[in-house]
Amino acid sequence: MAGRAAQDPAWMLAIDRDGEQPVYQQIAASIRNRIASGELREGAKLPATRVLAAHLGLQRNTVVAAYRLLEHEGLLRSGVGAGSFVRLPGSRPRKAGAPIGDAEPFAWQRLLRDRQALESDPARWLSARHLPVPADPIRFAGLAPDHRLFPLEDFGRSVRAVLEKAGPEILDYGPPEGDERLRRWVLTRLEQVGVRGVGEERVFIVSGSQQGLDLLAKLFLAPGDAVALEAPSYTGAFCALRHSGARIETVPMEAEGLALGALEALIARQPVKFLYTMPCFQNPTGISLGPAQRGRLLELARRCQLAIVEDHYDSDLYYRGERPRPLLADDPTGQVVHLGTFSKILFPGLRIGWLIVPAELAEPLRQIRWATDLASATLTQRVMEHFCRDGRLERHLQRIRRINARRLAAMLEALSEHFPRGARWTEPSGGMSLWVELPEGVDTVELFHQAAARGVLFSPGIAFFPQGGGHNAMRLSFNRESEERIREGLALLGRMIAERLAAPPRNKPAVEGPLP
Amino acid sequence: MAGRAAQDPAWMLAIDRDGEQPVYQQIAASIRNRIASGELREGAKLPATRVLAAHLGLQRNTVVAAYRLLEHEGLLRSGVGAGSFVRLPGSRPRKAGAPIGDAEPFAWQRLLRDRQALESDPARWLSARHLPVPADPIRFAGLAPDHRLFPLEDFGRSVRAVLEKAGPEILDYGPPEGDERLRRWVLTRLEQVGVRGVGEERVFIVSGSQQGLDLLAKLFLAPGDAVALEAPSYTGAFCALRHSGARIETVPMEAEGLALGALEALIARQPVKFLYTMPCFQNPTGISLGPAQRGRLLELARRCQLAIVEDHYDSDLYYRGERPRPLLADDPTGQVVHLGTFSKILFPGLRIGWLIVPAELAEPLRQIRWATDLASATLTQRVMEHFCRDGRLERHLQRIRRINARRLAAMLEALSEHFPRGARWTEPSGGMSLWVELPEGVDTVELFHQAAARGVLFSPGIAFFPQGGGHNAMRLSFNRESEERIREGLALLGRMIAERLAAPPRNKPAVEGPLP
Repeated sequence: MAGRAAQDPAWMLAIDRDGEQPVYQQIAASIRNRIASGELREGAKLPATRVLAAHLGLQRNTVVAAYRLLEHEGLLRSGVGAGSFVRLPGSRPRKAGAPIGDAEPFAWQRLLRDRQALESDPARWLSARHLPVPADPIRFAGLAPDHRLFPLEDFGRSVRAVLEKAGPEILDYGPPEGDERLRRWVLTRLEQVGVRGVGEERVFIVSGSQQGLDLLAKLFLAPGDAVALEAPSYTGAFCALRHSGARIETVPMEAEGLALGALEALIARQPVKFLYTMPCFQNPTGISLGPAQRGRLLELARRCQLAIVEDHYDSDLYYRGERPRPLLADDPTGQVVHLGTFSKILFPGLRIGWLIVPAELAEPLRQIRWATDLASATLTQRVMEHFCRDGRLERHLQRIRRINARRLAAMLEALSEHFPRGARWTEPSGGMSLWVELPEGVDTVELFHQAAARGVLFSPGIAFFPQGGGHNAMRLSFNRESEERIREGLALLGRMIAERLAAPPRNKPAVEGPLP
Repeated sequence: MAGRAAQDPAWMLAIDRDGEQPVYQQIAASIRNRIASGELREGAKLPATRVLAAHLGLQRNTVVAAYRLLEHEGLLRSGVGAGSFVRLPGSRPRKAGAPIGDAEPFAWQRLLRDRQALESDPARWLSARHLPVPADPIRFAGLAPDHRLFPLEDFGRSVRAVLEKAGPEILDYGPPEGDERLRRWVLTRLEQVGVRGVGEERVFIVSGSQQGLDLLAKLFLAPGDAVALEAPSYTGAFCALRHSGARIETVPMEAEGLALGALEALIARQPVKFLYTMPCFQNPTGISLGPAQRGRLLELARRCQLAIVEDHYDSDLYYRGERPRPLLADDPTGQVVHLGTFSKILFPGLRIGWLIVPAELAEPLRQIRWATDLASATLTQRVMEHFCRDGRLERHLQRIRRINARRLAAMLEALSEHFPRGARWTEPSGGMSLWVELPEGVDTVELFHQAAARGVLFSPGIAFFPQGGGHNAMRLSFNRESEERIREGLALLGRMIAERLAAPPRNKPAVEGPLP
């Protein structure tokens, strides 16, 4: 079927290899037009990527990139191993009911709640998981600590100590709100950055701040509700919130943090359930909210009755000045929900974060948490509490702050040296990543595929925009590689960017490197 | 304010201490009538339980029980420490927007997505958490393994072995689908009960089967969708599914499993997204689907295109015959999603279960899982895999099967000896609990409060009915106490039931025992 489709002269798409537009975007545009014109109908099967690529004399990955773009736009759906099919906007999957033969597989996809949200999920199509990547790539992608720096021996000591002291209850069901001792530790640590008067009943241990977002979505978001996010923002945040059926509204990021004027205009236009914001070392930009902006945001929130969800996911990773003060520390009216996590400093594989909510939400949250997965693991919570006592955490933090600061400096230096004129980047004072905008005309999805094939991974800008944007931008994490490898990776990226700027897709396939 | 309300002669409710109806139900009925008549309006504050109890000359717990019943019905809402307020059916919380003083706390409750679902959650009001319970109560409540039987030394050995062998990656982020080795182990174990031809890509490790339910709700259930459950069923299942906004439709349980005629009538009346069923040792009844019923259910599912979610949560706990064969083993059309867990045999505090889905759902599930909490903890998955190798799990299972079988026998014997004529109970061949129906007129919520105060915990029947029912029923777990304590607890329960049958609420408060 796919073969027949491609032999069809209709699939002899006109590609301008010397054109301004990357080849994969040309293919996508051509298919998009055929869908719009009615030439390709709901459910029509597209040629297999390999077949169409051969037909057009292109590398297969170019066609794959085009199909992924259309999937992202919700115009194609792809079953695993089943091929790609046209999906008209607003069309519904076929109804069940017609009798089928005994052996015909059951059609589960028709039961899915929201295929469109699933299909447009960037996690699906911007992952290097299915790409051919050489061994030991240089990792500027992902927001994770460098696991080679984990204090494994200290951790092992804590595990042994807890197992020796605790009874078998430590492996039994725990309470939905989490381990009492760890909750107290969280509160003590927050007190050190100015958070006062928060009762223990407001502290919940969650399985990472991603789960915190999921629980907040469950508490607050019904289909159609609006929620405000920075743009760009954390991909996992808008995926978590979008799966609840909420509408994502965006507020642009500026040099000093989110654009407060745009935020105020947004909430004047329509009610939003809450603003999700990362006030320090924002993901992906690395930007922190300036002190004046911070005061204005809190004032605006009070004046406009805006609920704020503050994600302090990497506030321990400051390389200048002091540990940042969370919005929660200046919240007399109780408008701020606060998210924190260990995952960016230590052991993300243990899945431990925390969520501070107003007292009146404690009981609803407890119920929602129970119905979601009962509770976090008991043993690992107690082990982390043990680990954090006695200054072990503080020692580790001092070490990784020192190392990360050097890596950040190396990255900033290498960007100046290797990236072309016209490229601009942020200079964060903490966190794990910075944001680069390349000159117009450099498509970072294309670059992502090319660089992955050459052993450099980064995150393309479009992954961070829930409603499009960032085609010429990228997030670079600076904390996962040695200074030497950072310089090496950026030199390679810089060369690839320069080549693209010198010669836009002239007579060469969109993606090079080995085929799968 | 509460004081004033109670001094009001209007609160001199007419209580008939010799009447047929329990006193707490009389109080609830009286308040319900005042709401219906308009005498009590939306937002009216009720007297504090202590005040009203003193006013009426009752124990406080009697008034607490009445208020909880009204909360369950959605007619009262209670803020933590804020008192109880009338809530009219269908009324909406007040809109925000009016200017408020700087110090006035932000009104979060108005932002909640579905207060009614939260307020009617049995987890909220049928918990012994806030009850005055003597130390070391006899536990017939809860469905959890007896942690005193945990093989802690074997577990410690596995932890040490994994920490010694694995690199630091074992504490880094893992894949959403779970640890590869543990997924292979799950498949091997399923093969032993006849599950063939399931590819590894269909196996997901989840943080307990409760999370499996949450993920399925996210995949399939939009507000208004219907889903079919057994009645009675697992409380956590209908809480998880209901929070997605789904309508819960019920199918009665019969002696040989769910009533297939009722199921077929239900799905003829309306489409349901799936049936959630526990085919062996059903929670709470302990009933297993008979072999003929099993065949008929599978046949009906194929004929009517019904998707099935099978919860095999305690299938390792069989005390007669062989390890039960899951529905998944006889599923040529791929209509069965299968849930399993370690939590009922070992270490529920580690939060490890598994979910087997059709291949076409693997990618959507991976995305949903990622957006929910990224993945399960890496270390604990690997430790469990290590623990399960080399026959350690099998040794432990043999031991707890032997012990649980004796405890089940002790409970059945004690029921015969101590429970009154007219009481009926199931005789499970496995699992952890059985189901008792008492003669009409014994209210098990009242009994629950009374028994808790005397040091015996059980689960009242109404906790297992999403749409009401079970007022004279109870679930008794038989696996958490020694045979001696089982006999002791049932003797006490039997005496309390006999007293109630002999003398319905004559001149005595609904609840006795120490006040908080």
